[in-house]
Amino acid sequence: MAPTSLTARFQQSVTPASLRAYLAEFISTFFYVFAVVGSAMASRKLLPDAAADPSSLVIVAIANAFALSSAVYIAANASGGHVNPAVTFGMAVGGHINVPTALFYWISQILASVMASIFLKVTTVGQHVPTYTIAEEMTGFGASLLEGVMTFGLVYTVYAAGDPRRSSLGAIGPLAVGLMAGANVLAAGPFSGGSMNPACAFGSAVIAGKFKNQAVYWVGPLIGASVAGLLYDNVVFPTQAPDTVRRGVSEGVGV
Amino acid sequence: MAPTSLTARFQQSVTPASLRAYLAEFISTFFYVFAVVGSAMASRKLLPDAAADPSSLVIVAIANAFALSSAVYIAANASGGHVNPAVTFGMAVGGHINVPTALFYWISQILASVMASIFLKVTTVGQHVPTYTIAEEMTGFGASLLEGVMTFGLVYTVYAAGDPRRSSLGAIGPLAVGLMAGANVLAAGPFSGGSMNPACAFGSAVIAGKFKNQAVYWVGPLIGASVAGLLYDNVVFPTQAPDTVRRGVSEGVGV
Amino acid sequence: MAPTSLTARFQQSVTPASLRAYLAEFISTFFYVFAVVGSAMASRKLLPDAAADPSSLVIVAIANAFALSSAVYIAANASGGHVNPAVTFGMAVGGHINVPTALFYWISQILASVMASIFLKVTTVGQHVPTYTIAEEMTGFGASLLEGVMTFGLVYTVYAAGDPRRSSLGAIGPLAVGLMAGANVLAAGPFSGGSMNPACAFGSAVIAGKFKNQAVYWVGPLIGASVAGLLYDNVVFPTQAPDTVRRGVSEGVGV
Amino acid sequence: MAPTSLTARFQQSVTPASLRAYLAEFISTFFYVFAVVGSAMASRKLLPDAAADPSSLVIVAIANAFALSSAVYIAANASGGHVNPAVTFGMAVGGHINVPTALFYWISQILASVMASIFLKVTTVGQHVPTYTIAEEMTGFGASLLEGVMTFGLVYTVYAAGDPRRSSLGAIGPLAVGLMAGANVLAAGPFSGGSMNPACAFGSAVIAGKFKNQAVYWVGPLIGASVAGLLYDNVVFPTQAPDTVRRGVSEGVGV
Repeated sequence: MAPTSLTARFQQSVTPASLRAYLAEFISTFFYVFAVVGSAMASRKLLPDAAADPSSLVIVAIANAFALSSAVYIAANASGGHVNPAVTFGMAVGGHINVPTALFYWISQILASVMASIFLKVTTVGQHVPTYTIAEEMTGFGASLLEGVMTFGLVYTVYAAGDPRRSSLGAIGPLAVGLMAGANVLAAGPFSGGSMNPACAFGSAVIAGKFKNQAVYWVGPLIGASVAGLLYDNVVFPTQAPDTVRRGVSEGVGV
Repeated sequence: MAPTSLTARFQQSVTPASLRAYLAEFISTFFYVFAVVGSAMASRKLLPDAAADPSSLVIVAIANAFALSSAVYIAANASGGHVNPAVTFGMAVGGHINVPTALFYWISQILASVMASIFLKVTTVGQHVPTYTIAEEMTGFGASLLEGVMTFGLVYTVYAAGDPRRSSLGAIGPLAVGLMAGANVLAAGPFSGGSMNPACAFGSAVIAGKFKNQAVYWVGPLIGASVAGLLYDNVVFPTQAPDTVRRGVSEGVGV
Repeated sequence: MAPTSLTARFQQSVTPASLRAYLAEFISTFFYVFAVVGSAMASRKLLPDAAADPSSLVIVAIANAFALSSAVYIAANASGGHVNPAVTFGMAVGGHINVPTALFYWISQILASVMASIFLKVTTVGQHVPTYTIAEEMTGFGASLLEGVMTFGLVYTVYAAGDPRRSSLGAIGPLAVGLMAGANVLAAGPFSGGSMNPACAFGSAVIAGKFKNQAVYWVGPLIGASVAGLLYDNVVFPTQAPDTVRRGVSEGVGV
Repeated sequence: MAPTSLTARFQQSVTPASLRAYLAEFISTFFYVFAVVGSAMASRKLLPDAAADPSSLVIVAIANAFALSSAVYIAANASGGHVNPAVTFGMAVGGHINVPTALFYWISQILASVMASIFLKVTTVGQHVPTYTIAEEMTGFGASLLEGVMTFGLVYTVYAAGDPRRSSLGAIGPLAVGLMAGANVLAAGPFSGGSMNPACAFGSAVIAGKFKNQAVYWVGPLIGASVAGLLYDNVVFPTQAPDTVRRGVSEGVGV
């Protein structure tokens, strides 16, 4: 990425291709948050004390895996299929997306999450919108660490899935991303919730009006995502030609 | 698509390729409805009050995801794998299938759904055939909105999966469609049922003889499907050459 | 397939490639039956009355889908990945495998199923080996019809998955086969068990010593498989060049 | 593989490509063990007597399938995606990886497993770390046999997935590996736990301080893995050109 002025960068962020990318992020994030928050609401509707039932963990984890796989899939060739501010942050730190574009991605993702939560609250006639919480015995630092490490795994998988050097395996990339998210939720569900997605945590918190421990779902994931991106690009799969790599991910977006 | 007379269009709808497409739709829809309605019957057989059990939601959602993935897969290169009148409607609105052909698709799909429901009732010796219902506190409008938005997501995924511009990712298209459906069911199961498929809702209602709220499962999905198709083709992924695009989906059918 | 003498046909069935195919069928069927019968035993171990628990249906259905997907996958380029006497029968009726070879496939599959059941009984120290049973209120004819229709769906999917004309979608063929099986089990589990596989039903029956209703798991599936194969080849996807088609399925086996 | 001196072999094991492979194995094994051990801890957190609940078996099995699929996927083109000392052992016996390199793989995998277990214990504030145990009525020999046969299935699938001769099916290889693992866990969960992975069994045992029956999770899997590799290469899919085969698996590692 050649050094460009801020104005030029900003202009790259409002091309038709970029606007389509923001819309694609909005749609994908909307359906991801709809499934994740909605499945938690569905569990509670069926069983008021669902938080303590193993079946409910299965419901939320499968919803995560299924929804993220298809959300990444449908946005893949418009926006790269981030569906997650932490992924976008990791991509920005790695230099695969410029900062103004990343900011518009964030706005799209957070707006989509808030809209999905409002939509769920309205159509279910005021059903309680659940927020991510951490287990009583855990500290905020521990939960942040847990969310951070899981987000590392998720963003590392996103990098691997978007790597154009893995020809035939590229086909199942979106599935690998979704399955990594689902596996992490199964492990961390009753402890920190397994958000790995600041937009999802923020959207539901806005509607529920509960911002307790919100920092946990931002600090850990953003740090984890950055480390994952830097490690993948510089250590595990160092790029010979940094300018041409990752085009699979950023295709259609002016970088 | 060049302007053709109604007769010519109709003749395109009774070619051998088209007849095979109708048969493929029939077979795929039959097995989809069999799994979706059958899994709900299986849950009730195991637990009479299954509607209030989280495990039953898992059963119905997984049946949806698994059955739709394979149903779309087996019909993909004969009929495009719609398996759903809402998908066919969305394709017709977008101009990817002509109206007479779409009508025959509808007839095949609805017939298949009714036959699957009869088959289940007969082989299980008069077990109760469940219909889609909406939660007590919800309004018909809210449920219709919910079904409509979920169908938007489903049809948007069908468009993305059939898009020939996403070369290697095309391979997992049918899976992405099934997973989107499964994720939506996990979120909306206890609220509106998560049908997203008018044929499925209608077939079970015919056999059970209960048409309450039937409109919910037609109005919302058909509107959602139309919006999804128009948005995908015109805004998110505008087509340079409208005549050649979507051939992946309509292959084998005279458009 | 040119008309050949019985001796010549038999000689084709004992080539090194064919012997490898039988071994591949043995290994795949062993692990499929191990997972299906084993998961039912695991459910009962956890909950003696597991037959009446929705979670147990999830366990058995997922085991079916996961195990069949991978079993078909690992045998695909040695034997075509039948893993099921009904599939082999359907392929023989359709002329894609000659009769002596099909018989050796059957022997491998049935032997594998019996061995897997013995293995489970021995390593779990005499745990009860469950057999497929039909619900009390059902007739043998109804159960046979149910199993037959489900096997139709399964074999139709196997045909679609092995069809060399669906280039990129071919990659997820084994998954589609497994997901179809899983969806059917979710629907028919509490009614006829959802076997769709005579070898699996027979193997567990031999070890448990219970052959009640065994015919249900042979007659229906074999008829359903034949109809599926004939319909796929002759009606839905008629072949221009019958000799070259299905090579994907029978690769490595002298047909 | 030409005969080389021990020194030369060792030098091949400390190239930059090899070091990256060890790091990739570390990352993948960390997330696999995190999900497997973490999901068992999550089950117990929700339900103290979770060991006797079918839903918990679903949780652990799905975590296994999802996590292994994505763990194999992300490491595939750096280290071949072993994620398991038994797989590495099978590859070494088959001559696809040299012994010093295999030892470094083992160290990476075991270290990752211990680290994942420590990480779970610390972040969940001293939650009990579960270890693999065998059912009361079973013998150590029976459990070892069970684990060995399941590992045979897993390693056979890894060989099939890495086989460059199965062109288009190669894309879903990592999924097939994960699904085989998940299916086996569903069958053997309540009997021997379904570890199939000595690193995973060892890591959790170190943190819990319980080494009872640890041999079960090493002897069986290592023997099963060796037999699988030898059988695949020499009997089921004999290689014409042993030097060029398996390059898909060992790509990026000096063999």
